[in-house]
Amino acid sequence: MIVIMKQGATEVQIANVTARIEQLGCRVHLSEGKERTIIGIIGNGRPIDREQIELMDGVERTVRILRPFKLASRDFHPLDTVFAINGIQIGSRQLVVMAGPCAVESRAQLLETAHAVKEAGAHVLRGGAFKPRTSPYSFQGLGEEGLKLLAQAREETGLPIVTEVLDPQQVPLVATYADILQIGARNMQNYALLHAVGEAQRPVLLKRGMMSTIEELLMAAEYILSHGNERIILCERGIRTFEQYTRNTLDISAVPLIKQLSHLPVIVDPSHGTGKWELVEPVSRAAVAVGADGLIIEVHPHPEEALSDGAQSLKPERFATLMQSLRPVAAAVGRTL
Amino acid sequence: MIVIMKQGATEVQIANVTARIEQLGCRVHLSEGKERTIIGIIGNGRPIDREQIELMDGVERTVRILRPFKLASRDFHPLDTVFAINGIQIGSRQLVVMAGPCAVESRAQLLETAHAVKEAGAHVLRGGAFKPRTSPYSFQGLGEEGLKLLAQAREETGLPIVTEVLDPQQVPLVATYADILQIGARNMQNYALLHAVGEAQRPVLLKRGMMSTIEELLMAAEYILSHGNERIILCERGIRTFEQYTRNTLDISAVPLIKQLSHLPVIVDPSHGTGKWELVEPVSRAAVAVGADGLIIEVHPHPEEALSDGAQSLKPERFATLMQSLRPVAAAVGRTL
Amino acid sequence: MIVIMKQGATEVQIANVTARIEQLGCRVHLSEGKERTIIGIIGNGRPIDREQIELMDGVERTVRILRPFKLASRDFHPLDTVFAINGIQIGSRQLVVMAGPCAVESRAQLLETAHAVKEAGAHVLRGGAFKPRTSPYSFQGLGEEGLKLLAQAREETGLPIVTEVLDPQQVPLVATYADILQIGARNMQNYALLHAVGEAQRPVLLKRGMMSTIEELLMAAEYILSHGNERIILCERGIRTFEQYTRNTLDISAVPLIKQLSHLPVIVDPSHGTGKWELVEPVSRAAVAVGADGLIIEVHPHPEEALSDGAQSLKPERFATLMQSLRPVAAAVGRTL
Amino acid sequence: MIVIMKQGATEVQIANVTARIEQLGCRVHLSEGKERTIIGIIGNGRPIDREQIELMDGVERTVRILRPFKLASRDFHPLDTVFAINGIQIGSRQLVVMAGPCAVESRAQLLETAHAVKEAGAHVLRGGAFKPRTSPYSFQGLGEEGLKLLAQAREETGLPIVTEVLDPQQVPLVATYADILQIGARNMQNYALLHAVGEAQRPVLLKRGMMSTIEELLMAAEYILSHGNERIILCERGIRTFEQYTRNTLDISAVPLIKQLSHLPVIVDPSHGTGKWELVEPVSRAAVAVGADGLIIEVHPHPEEALSDGAQSLKPERFATLMQSLRPVAAAVGRTL
Repeated sequence: MIVIMKQGATEVQIANVTARIEQLGCRVHLSEGKERTIIGIIGNGRPIDREQIELMDGVERTVRILRPFKLASRDFHPLDTVFAINGIQIGSRQLVVMAGPCAVESRAQLLETAHAVKEAGAHVLRGGAFKPRTSPYSFQGLGEEGLKLLAQAREETGLPIVTEVLDPQQVPLVATYADILQIGARNMQNYALLHAVGEAQRPVLLKRGMMSTIEELLMAAEYILSHGNERIILCERGIRTFEQYTRNTLDISAVPLIKQLSHLPVIVDPSHGTGKWELVEPVSRAAVAVGADGLIIEVHPHPEEALSDGAQSLKPERFATLMQSLRPVAAAVGRTL
Repeated sequence: MIVIMKQGATEVQIANVTARIEQLGCRVHLSEGKERTIIGIIGNGRPIDREQIELMDGVERTVRILRPFKLASRDFHPLDTVFAINGIQIGSRQLVVMAGPCAVESRAQLLETAHAVKEAGAHVLRGGAFKPRTSPYSFQGLGEEGLKLLAQAREETGLPIVTEVLDPQQVPLVATYADILQIGARNMQNYALLHAVGEAQRPVLLKRGMMSTIEELLMAAEYILSHGNERIILCERGIRTFEQYTRNTLDISAVPLIKQLSHLPVIVDPSHGTGKWELVEPVSRAAVAVGADGLIIEVHPHPEEALSDGAQSLKPERFATLMQSLRPVAAAVGRTL
Repeated sequence: MIVIMKQGATEVQIANVTARIEQLGCRVHLSEGKERTIIGIIGNGRPIDREQIELMDGVERTVRILRPFKLASRDFHPLDTVFAINGIQIGSRQLVVMAGPCAVESRAQLLETAHAVKEAGAHVLRGGAFKPRTSPYSFQGLGEEGLKLLAQAREETGLPIVTEVLDPQQVPLVATYADILQIGARNMQNYALLHAVGEAQRPVLLKRGMMSTIEELLMAAEYILSHGNERIILCERGIRTFEQYTRNTLDISAVPLIKQLSHLPVIVDPSHGTGKWELVEPVSRAAVAVGADGLIIEVHPHPEEALSDGAQSLKPERFATLMQSLRPVAAAVGRTL
Repeated sequence: MIVIMKQGATEVQIANVTARIEQLGCRVHLSEGKERTIIGIIGNGRPIDREQIELMDGVERTVRILRPFKLASRDFHPLDTVFAINGIQIGSRQLVVMAGPCAVESRAQLLETAHAVKEAGAHVLRGGAFKPRTSPYSFQGLGEEGLKLLAQAREETGLPIVTEVLDPQQVPLVATYADILQIGARNMQNYALLHAVGEAQRPVLLKRGMMSTIEELLMAAEYILSHGNERIILCERGIRTFEQYTRNTLDISAVPLIKQLSHLPVIVDPSHGTGKWELVEPVSRAAVAVGADGLIIEVHPHPEEALSDGAQSLKPERFATLMQSLRPVAAAVGRTL
């Protein structure tokens, strides 16, 4: 960390800051410029609270040198994290496609979708049993009944299951049924929940909050990692901006940026990222071209009857077409689908 | 709800939409313009899923007529909600000031602060025992030990306590100690937690999410109201924008706007809303002038040693000065402090 | 347009609104719901000011039915606009790549870059002679001298020139030298400038403002179109969000969305869209995959000595590699480069 | 400026950066930490381009120490800038209120408004003759005819005039009629226009761009100051966020923050800042309470017939009530109205 003193900071102020830093067990490196004195802090491994220093007399501001995430960083872990789910190597040349309905609504709806996405080439079945809804009057999911239907669909199709968990207390139950635990965008900073999935013996799909920075996403991953769970898949799903024609603004450059900063695999959710089914296919192609490790896509046999997210769901036949159109793009960037 | 058909929508498409709406138990009101046909839906009280209609052939988009919140709306409940906490009428002419440290750090720190803010005229003591922190390596709060210290401070000063709850499982424990349960910004859409505090017999301080619209804040209140808890205080605490000199951008017009839309009391958090202690005093004056029902302010006896939020905490003497400077502003707008 | 009356609006209020609409030469279509009366306005082709109606007693709000752009809309002009620049069909299967330095700095710098990008397959040479800079103390461009160097580079390489114009008075001068007039992001709503380029006999590259909606971009194009200039290329170049690791957030779904709404060609600027040269290659691939009609990319022979935008400029050899990596992606989506 | 080298940067890389800095005429101050080497640059007064250094091998990033504005900064000019317009001391204890219609529409409309706002206590008459409109089909202002009407209104009421200028070529004409030249939000970074008003012998009202940071606003002021014009009034008028119930989000803390950073006077525009006339009164009170030096408010005798901005315009009688309600707030913060 670096401390920038105010123009005209006195010798006494500088000495006080220096003394405080040394008292915290760090060494000081002083640099006197023409307009400002700069104090470098040479650490002892323990983080110093920037705000404490910033409040001392004569200090203008401090500047952080190191990024705040460690276990999630590529500096700490230079090689890509790759792990298998049902034989698919997540984070490898092989792309992973997760597909299925927003919410599990009925046995018929789920099984029809599961068979269709399997047929089209998907590797994982998605479907929500517990649904976080903006309105208390909207459909909140089938709960454990939905989890049981997901397990049936896995049995019939062989597809592993990814489903969302909303409450720390639900984690053991959901982990009984699910192959991957999903943390939704609204819960990216629900630390009690991050703690709970960090201790579960299950891979985690961690979605970026709709108004979270990339740094905050990596800090959320750091929570899970710090509880010993290393099987994390990050997911870019669009952020909130002033643009109103789309539900969110998909941050496509987040993918290569996260790949630079971190070793964790990253997939893209073009359904939430755009909110419009017509945009799902072109944006999926972009995600593959930019280097994402996979996609998670909403598919519903009858979007116009879906209990949630119909507007952004593909019909099974459109999903099959999409999968076809992705193969040459994947090949063009040296990946397989 | 209104359905706007595409330019050139066919008679069959219009008939299909009409049939679907009637099948959902609603009546239809057709209006054929020069360029577009518009279909009005006359409801039967049950909400229709807009996306289902938007996906039908020939439909361009739908327009919602009614706001999605009901129990929280002033249409439904025209008179201001006013309720007492320890003799203070929240939502009345009397302003409420909640003050105290970001986190409870020690007995000495808490009691010194509690006495000081009481002396200066605060009505409620704030202090976090469970802290949501971006980094897993930051101080996470003293937990139940912190709650016990808060209870002691209440005993010594007579000030009621507001403290944050992070996890639905913690609600019964926190409710044992706290007079007001705080839902923090990161948890505004943590529906499991909203459910839990909705069922607790305690007033709730509900902070606006840093990424949330006013409508979403009112929908979060709707969750709590729909579980039978009507003692809710809303809190504007700044939203995330591109501006980088402040931690958040305090949305001052949210206060009168929420007053128009809802009957619930609204307070302002100038500490998080700005992130800089120098801005807390002027912004507090603005909050009182704009019509807020109160303030929640971070105070710490030694901000430069605070374990969190030091940069935005006032020293007790500055807090006392602030209280003095607020009184004439309150009087100018017909309120008392 | 539709007028939504307040709950409890009186008959007199409804009659007044109706009378006003008829006085403006429109017809009225009344629909009385259980909770609200809705008044549809059947127009006479002239737009009605929504705010005028919204201010009438008893009116809650109005809802626009038609989009505000006309000449720019696909409804009005269903076929793609395609036009030639130096033999390249902009908006066709053939992608267009514009490349060159942010600013023209010297004869040597420009010619070295021009030859290199030509060699690598670029179709248009970019380079700023008049530079809009945040600081009055930064390099402001070579002015007309820069335009002359651009003309020389065209003569030597055969590449047509795109360069920015900042001031309506400069348009005739810049149009003497340039093949395409660029309107930068900061000037997207500089209406005097849009007017001036609308009357120039030159194609226009119109960049999206960094905090402009897609609708506003199309309205800016509408200004140019309404002055009779139909040769417009739109450019997505990233918008401003809260994310701080990148300079802007490139809105990748803007490309297919604009293609739906409008007939105008759209290209992507991955250099400004990310602000980091390492991200230019993956994001360029994404832009091609999503369906953009081309790219505009900053290239500098010595980015570490560039007088502006060095951080996002590619070296010529990296640009050549990028062009190679784009060809299979273009082929995968049925385009040629 | 400070250069942060990458973890593992080599001695050669460090030596190259050092050599480059010395070649630019600066001195170097080296600090080797446990994980990173930091290079401080001790300047010679001329700014160094950060991007040039950031692109050198082994460099992770650079950190700016000094703020980029100088003439606009309080460091450079510690005392408040105060100047008179028609006897009103802008920037003094005396608040300035500018009021009038969004656009000059007719002689009757303007004179009626001018007399009314004068009567209610306004000090300056506002009114647009050249209007920047999102749509080319909206009313664009009366042009010079509007300026003549403004001059008439000044003659009749004695109120000085503030009016917007859109095009550098118009500056001499507008300066003939206006007492204060307004730069609108869309033109805050129209550098040709900033240059032109910088050279005019007229005070300038500079509105913050709806997409601009406070630093960029001060840099825009720096452009005008660097051309020798020191009579600048800054104006906070709301920024664009994701919130949709208001037209913009008024950044109330920008006022005290600008006062810290700069010596220039700052006023608030609650009309554009909210977009709703019902919010203008409470937000005006907040602006006075937070320490603004004045207000600019839209007033129209018949908002429901206004050719622009009707929804945010006050009727004259409401404006008079607002002025009454501001006086006690002004007094409460030691200001006069």
